[in-house]
This record gives sequence, C-alpha cells and structure tokens, in this order.
Amino acid sequence: MHALIVVAHPEPRSFNGQLAAIAADTLRAAGHTVEISDLYRSRFEACEGPRHYPSRLDPDLFDTQAEQRHAADHGALPADVAAELDRLLRADLLILQFPMWWFSVPAMMKGWVDRVLVYGKTYTSRMRYDRGLLRGRRAMLSVTLGGPEPTFAHNGRNGDIDLLLWPMNMTLSYVGYSVLPSFTAFGVFEDGEESARRLQRYKDAYRDRIAAIDRAAPLRFNGWDDWDGEGRLKPGVEGHSLFMRATP
Amino acid sequence: MHALIVVAHPEPRSFNGQLAAIAADTLRAAGHTVEISDLYRSRFEACEGPRHYPSRLDPDLFDTQAEQRHAADHGALPADVAAELDRLLRADLLILQFPMWWFSVPAMMKGWVDRVLVYGKTYTSRMRYDRGLLRGRRAMLSVTLGGPEPTFAHNGRNGDIDLLLWPMNMTLSYVGYSVLPSFTAFGVFEDGEESARRLQRYKDAYRDRIAAIDRAAPLRFNGWDDWDGEGRLKPGVEGHSLFMRATP
Repeated sequence: MHALIVVAHPEPRSFNGQLAAIAADTLRAAGHTVEISDLYRSRFEACEGPRHYPSRLDPDLFDTQAEQRHAADHGALPADVAAELDRLLRADLLILQFPMWWFSVPAMMKGWVDRVLVYGKTYTSRMRYDRGLLRGRRAMLSVTLGGPEPTFAHNGRNGDIDLLLWPMNMTLSYVGYSVLPSFTAFGVFEDGEESARRLQRYKDAYRDRIAAIDRAAPLRFNGWDDWDGEGRLKPGVEGHSLFMRATP
Repeated sequence: MHALIVVAHPEPRSFNGQLAAIAADTLRAAGHTVEISDLYRSRFEACEGPRHYPSRLDPDLFDTQAEQRHAADHGALPADVAAELDRLLRADLLILQFPMWWFSVPAMMKGWVDRVLVYGKTYTSRMRYDRGLLRGRRAMLSVTLGGPEPTFAHNGRNGDIDLLLWPMNMTLSYVGYSVLPSFTAFGVFEDGEESARRLQRYKDAYRDRIAAIDRAAPLRFNGWDDWDGEGRLKPGVEGHSLFMRATP
C-alpha cells in the first residue's frame, strides 16, 4: 500500500507534525510506502483563482469548475496542483492531518481541497459520490482540537465533533473515497503534566489506530441509487448522513 | 449604521459580486454607510502562519493564538490584518459574501476568519460566545450554491444547508455577533432562461432582505450561563445549537 499524508500546520514541531510522523513511521514499519505533503513547508498557494490559469477557457469571466476542467483536459493544470494531484493519485490511503480552527479546517487545508480535488480529475458531474473517480481508495482525517473533549460532545458548547467534521468527510466521499472514522485529539493546547500524559496516550492510540488501519470499517454514505431525480433520499431508503440524525 | 461586506469570490462579475453590490446599494439608499472588502482584489494572504510575525513571542515554536495575542497586545499585528480589523471594528453590521465550495467556505474566506478574528481583539479565553468582544453588532452570511435547492434539504444528497452553514454561524457567534439568518441562492451555475429568472428572483429577494435587515430576528445560541464547568449544557436548559437537533 502507498499512503499520502497531507499536513496543514504552520509549526513542524507541533502535535500535528508529531502525529504525521507517527503515521508515517507506523505505516513504513508495516512495509507500506509513504509520502508526506507538508503544505506550509512547500508554501502551497491556498486560494483558487484566475492567477493560476494563464491560458483561460473564458478570459472574461472566471468560472472555477469550468477552468479546472479545461486545464485538466488540456494538460494545463497549474504545476503545484499537478504535482499534488500526482501524489494523490499514487496513494491508496490518504490522511489529512490538521488542527481544527474555527470549527473547521485551516485555510491552508481548505485550499488544498479547493485546488487539488480537480473537476475532471477527481470527479465529474456524472462521476461523483459513490461513482467518484477516487473510489476504491481510503481516506481519513486526523484532527487536533484545542478545547477539552466534553465541549465537543453532543451537548457541548463547541458542538458534536462528528457533525463538525462531516463536511470534510462528505468531501472525501464525494470524490469516491471510502472514508474511515476520524482520529481526534482534544485539549492539545493545555499545559502541565496531566496534559503531557494525555498527549502521550493520544500518540499511542494513533499508532494503534494506524497499525490496524487495514481492519477499519469505513463510514457509511448514501449513493446515487438512493436519491430521486431531485437529489432527495427515496422513500424507504435509510439515510446515512449524520446530518439526517437532525430532525428539521 | 455602518456596514462591512467581505467578499470572497475570484470573479468580480460573478453572482456573488452582484449580490454584494445589491447589499451595498440598498444599505446606502437607506442612509447607511458601507465598505466592501474584496479579498481577491486586495490579494489577501489567506494562510495564518509564522511569516506574518517577524517579531515573535516564541521564535522557536509557532503557536497561532499566542502569537496573535502577543502581536495584538504590542501593536504589532500584520499590516493587512490590522487594516481588516479596523474595518471590522468600524462596522455595526458584517455581511460575509461567498460561494459554497466543498460544503464550506472558500479558502480565501476561511483565511480571513483565521487571521482577522484575532485572539485578544475579537475574543479572549474569558470573553467569547455571548461575552465575545464584538457583542452588540450583527452579522450574516450570504451564500451562493451550485446545486439545486432540494439537494440541500434535510434529506438531500448535499445535506441540510442550515447545518452546513452552522460552523460559520457559530464562528460569528463565538466572537459575540448577533447572527442573522443566512441568505442562500441555489443553482447559480445553471444555464438557461429559467435559471436567469431564478437569479433575478434571488436578487429581488436579497434586496428586500437587506432593506428589512433592521427588523430581522437573530438566530439563538446558548451562552456561558447555560453550560456547566465542563462545557456541557446544564440539565433543563434548552439547547439552541442546530447540531443538538441531531440525536447522538
């Protein structure tokens, strides 16, 4: 198996950096190969936009998906995106490593999603969700959080962590990945001995999780056969979206 | 009233640009003053990180919140952030205008959040949520979506739009804003006459919404008095988080 670990943290010696190293070491020890894409180190340009497309389909009006598709079809993807996409397409397993900032991913990680999940290369209008072009591969999120775990509970002040991560997991599923349960480490900003012990426990747990990754059961998502022509769940079909647990 | 409209779309002539102009025109016609911050036009640097802090609290290990607080306390915020923050602090009303990309905001908008909602200026560990430093001000999201409206319904394949926008609305609430209901325009990428008529209806509806903004009731959020020492909702207190509609 070949794995790609994408890291979006401004400090290489951060707990995020340590978790990425644990994943890489553990996978390599099991005989797998690993690449790490450290987006801050490579100064990845996070914001999708016209400056990345010198040769435009429509020079007058920038439409992101149209320009991505045009560049993909003509071998004219931006060089940084083409390199990241090559890495992505080489990998059977993708791990996205990031800190939660403002109930979501840092701009750097979102920019990787916006630019590298190229229309025409990772999905098309007909090939997405369970028909996404990356189907057959696996992906997971590994996330650090500043707040303590109870604040991310169902009734916690920061909100249910599984629901907070659902948009990113939907994104991975949209391009076809089998999405494994996320790894979450809470309270990483706290000082003191108790915190140090907790961080060590998280590192041990992450090593165990990665070592057993071949046996992890993916999250369930609905697919094209489950939706009607308008994109709503057909009557009688079980909804797997975590958002569907919410009564409207 | 003074309003700030922050726009994160790579194309000035996009529907996002048109909605921003409608909001500005409507507010000015009602006697208010308006600033527009077009993040793509100003080439805003989206990714928070060490390169923005030449004078560091800790030159060896970059901690985002610690460096933001240190810079805020010593008048050493990055110039672009200081300018955006001045605009923000001048405004009684904040409108964030963006397209939904990958079930969330574009990296450019997320970067504005990551960098401009400065620790020490918009919130502190004691002054956040209903005690956030921007309390007494109002904010709203105005969002365009490529997919048709039914796909963003409770049982739609893209997921409940209110839940998708909840992390951004939580962010606004965290720094103290009274958060108004979001404006959403669906199916903006579709071609044809029917689509053109729908976009015109959205523009009319947005003009009406902005004209009546003084009468809009804010969304409800829980506050410090509602949570116990661990950050969980106290027994008997009604939960206002949309995520709490989801049964664990």
